[in-house]
Amino acid sequence: MNYVLACLTQINNGGDFVTVKARGRAISRAVDVAQVLTKRFATDIKVQSIAINTEQVKSTITGGMSNVSSIEIKLGK
Amino acid sequence: MNYVLACLTQINNGGDFVTVKARGRAISRAVDVAQVLTKRFATDIKVQSIAINTEQVKSTITGGMSNVSSIEIKLGK
Repeated sequence: MNYVLACLTQINNGGDFVTVKARGRAISRAVDVAQVLTKRFATDIKVQSIAINTEQVKSTITGGMSNVSSIEIKLGK
Repeated sequence: MNYVLACLTQINNGGDFVTVKARGRAISRAVDVAQVLTKRFATDIKVQSIAINTEQVKSTITGGMSNVSSIEIKLGK
């Protein structure tokens, strides 16, 4: 819900689009944010594009690299 | 990994595309499957389209309806 509010603030301050990004297990939350925003709070906002990718993240414990999926949802008027 | 295998099987059996669908917290796993498939096991397969939506699901406990986000990732040659 905090993320929904943050997106709304950006749009209401004159921004034409917002990009919601997430990695790993937070991906489902990014999709939730986009859906709540477009279906309930800002029905004039639409999903413009969705991209998925893989990022390399360094483990703070082992120091090794691991692959983690990411998502970028671009929302705009 | 089972899902990656299932997708590979469908492609290798002559399918031109595979659609990976998920709801709720499984969304991040669907993205993982798509990424592992396109980046490691079948580099000729590309992400064709990604769609997100909201589905109404009936709770088996309370019987009430709740909204859950969903994703559809279409992969193809």
